[in-house]
Amino acid sequence: MKTLVINCGSSSLKYQLIDMSTEECMVQGLVERIGIEGSVLTQKVEGKDKYVINTEIKNHKDAIKLVLEALIDPVHGVIKSMDEISAVGHRVVHGGEKYSDSVLINDKVLQSIKDCIVLAPLHNPPNIIGIEACKELMPNTPMVAVFDTAFHQTMPKHSYICPLPYDLYEKYGIRKYGFHGTSHKYVSNKVAEVMGKDLKDLKIVTCHLGNGCSLAAVKNGKSVDTSMGFTPLAGVMMGTRSGSIDPSVISFLIEQHGYTIEEVDELLNKKSGVLGISGVSSDFRDVLAAGEAGNERAKLALEIFYYKVRTQIAAYAGAMGGIDVIVFTAGIGENSSITRKEILKGLEFFGLELNEENNEIRGKIQEISTEDSRVKVYVVPTNEELMIARDTAKLVK
Amino acid sequence: MKTLVINCGSSSLKYQLIDMSTEECMVQGLVERIGIEGSVLTQKVEGKDKYVINTEIKNHKDAIKLVLEALIDPVHGVIKSMDEISAVGHRVVHGGEKYSDSVLINDKVLQSIKDCIVLAPLHNPPNIIGIEACKELMPNTPMVAVFDTAFHQTMPKHSYICPLPYDLYEKYGIRKYGFHGTSHKYVSNKVAEVMGKDLKDLKIVTCHLGNGCSLAAVKNGKSVDTSMGFTPLAGVMMGTRSGSIDPSVISFLIEQHGYTIEEVDELLNKKSGVLGISGVSSDFRDVLAAGEAGNERAKLALEIFYYKVRTQIAAYAGAMGGIDVIVFTAGIGENSSITRKEILKGLEFFGLELNEENNEIRGKIQEISTEDSRVKVYVVPTNEELMIARDTAKLVK
Repeated sequence: MKTLVINCGSSSLKYQLIDMSTEECMVQGLVERIGIEGSVLTQKVEGKDKYVINTEIKNHKDAIKLVLEALIDPVHGVIKSMDEISAVGHRVVHGGEKYSDSVLINDKVLQSIKDCIVLAPLHNPPNIIGIEACKELMPNTPMVAVFDTAFHQTMPKHSYICPLPYDLYEKYGIRKYGFHGTSHKYVSNKVAEVMGKDLKDLKIVTCHLGNGCSLAAVKNGKSVDTSMGFTPLAGVMMGTRSGSIDPSVISFLIEQHGYTIEEVDELLNKKSGVLGISGVSSDFRDVLAAGEAGNERAKLALEIFYYKVRTQIAAYAGAMGGIDVIVFTAGIGENSSITRKEILKGLEFFGLELNEENNEIRGKIQEISTEDSRVKVYVVPTNEELMIARDTAKLVK
Repeated sequence: MKTLVINCGSSSLKYQLIDMSTEECMVQGLVERIGIEGSVLTQKVEGKDKYVINTEIKNHKDAIKLVLEALIDPVHGVIKSMDEISAVGHRVVHGGEKYSDSVLINDKVLQSIKDCIVLAPLHNPPNIIGIEACKELMPNTPMVAVFDTAFHQTMPKHSYICPLPYDLYEKYGIRKYGFHGTSHKYVSNKVAEVMGKDLKDLKIVTCHLGNGCSLAAVKNGKSVDTSMGFTPLAGVMMGTRSGSIDPSVISFLIEQHGYTIEEVDELLNKKSGVLGISGVSSDFRDVLAAGEAGNERAKLALEIFYYKVRTQIAAYAGAMGGIDVIVFTAGIGENSSITRKEILKGLEFFGLELNEENNEIRGKIQEISTEDSRVKVYVVPTNEELMIARDTAKLVK
């Protein structure tokens, strides 16, 4: 069985075709600049040349049509006909309170995803467009929605209810949902497997540190808290997002300095975090380089990032009554040894000891704590696509 | 030497006269409803009847005039003439970045306090009115300003710089200031004294839990982090204040549900927190009673409060590289044994063990951890007035 995994953004589309008999990725590709001048599809297949198509791609339906053509291309493709695709798994950002697991898509489910647009106005609409385009082009192929929020639906009320008037939760659905759930689920499962332990016996803090950053407290296999909240803006500081701040800053900017709420939104989402403090970049590699070259604000931005993640890890020890293992994943978590080292500094009192030599790895599964470390630390590359494919295969069977 | 301590609110004024030779409070009083119908002064002196004056009190100058009359009243007072008052110590909420300690008030200092109005528009103006009224009535008595923010001025940059564009700090002073500093300073000093330890050797988390709630991480005698932020709205949930929330909630309420920023401000400051979730009250005693009577939302509000304080304590272990002692103070912290017990639940992995019998005390200094507990826990009643009087006496000498 071969499963196509689709992740639609507003003007981009990522895809993978995964052979579920081996769980191997047969092909991965990216369509960029959909509906914008300069559209391009790039497809990679192990052992083949990179396949690049520069052509006008007016909309997501055009994009998916092109993806299907690329997949069956006699030279660059990997399958003979579309019929080999048994199912399509769609990443969907927001499933609200309705979905605590993945689900086969039918008209009712599609409507529920549409109902969640108000909660994720930037993310759910492109996800929906992707689903509708696939439905049109592959009407007989079963499709599954895999939600970023689903894994966190196990959170207890004391984690997800906001300290606001309760009717804002009842009337408007304002609560903590949490995101990156597919990633947190994947790496927490994977680390238990690698440790040879039962997930049910572990208190895990998973640190998904990429463009967006979120941590989760995973106790006995269930997410009991996570740092993102009602939206992906909350929690620890990120590349361009502020994370949680004193809410009064917003009224101060509006009332004292004439900002509009739209400007504040833009500021907190696009101009804050590591970029805002450093003034250099939202890309950690740039900021690390600037810091090494002596840029004080770059150094400060990094110190603040380390501090926020470190104290969030410690807070989750309080949430779970201890920590057995910390997992680093996603772009920064998998690849930046200095970031991991600096975050863990000061957590030695937990009984945590870093193996500095093992920490010098990038992008592969590795235990990076010492043998004697009571709290274990691992790097586990995330694989959200595989997780989506697995859920899709399971539901289609 | 006798020091008068003044704490001016918008329509109230608290005062104490403290004999610095014994550090004993000779008299404490409260003027309420200044400028409002039904003004009243209430004064208590140990061993005397409560003294109540119901009279029109048009403004703060009238209030202070009445306080001075009450202090020298032949029957209810404690001094013979105003000349016995050697100095006046004023509580001032916001000293900005200028004041990391208390200061003798002169025209320049008064101007600086006025410059901070923009940072504390609700609090600094009544403080200033109090200072100006005293200056008029006691022109030759030296006066000292003691700031709520001063103790936290030792925070390192990674604690106080917000994850926002750096120029918002440079241009508008947006950063974490922290509040309740006089209380955090007092109880951290006191607990070291009681333990017979040097403050320089201790990692302390001080939990000031009253109408407002804030925690501080006090390492080697210095505040290195605190939960309140740019304003007293941030941090853990409080009686009516939300504490920190996902900042996107604000734009969601404004853009999707037509709130004004003023309404959101009011909501977050006055209608959220324990009151907002429970729907019962902002007073912990009412909410505890409702919870015991089976009110589910009261129980939820309490659970959330415990959880937020517990995880904040744990976060500060990460901030300081461990914790030696936790201190509870202020109304709830001093008086609610159940609150202390529930907050500490789940922190046993730190090596913390509660002595449940000792925990059943109210409003006095008491070690409440067991003898074997590696992390010590104390109840230490706060005494901001004494701290203000001490700073005042020190500066006047």
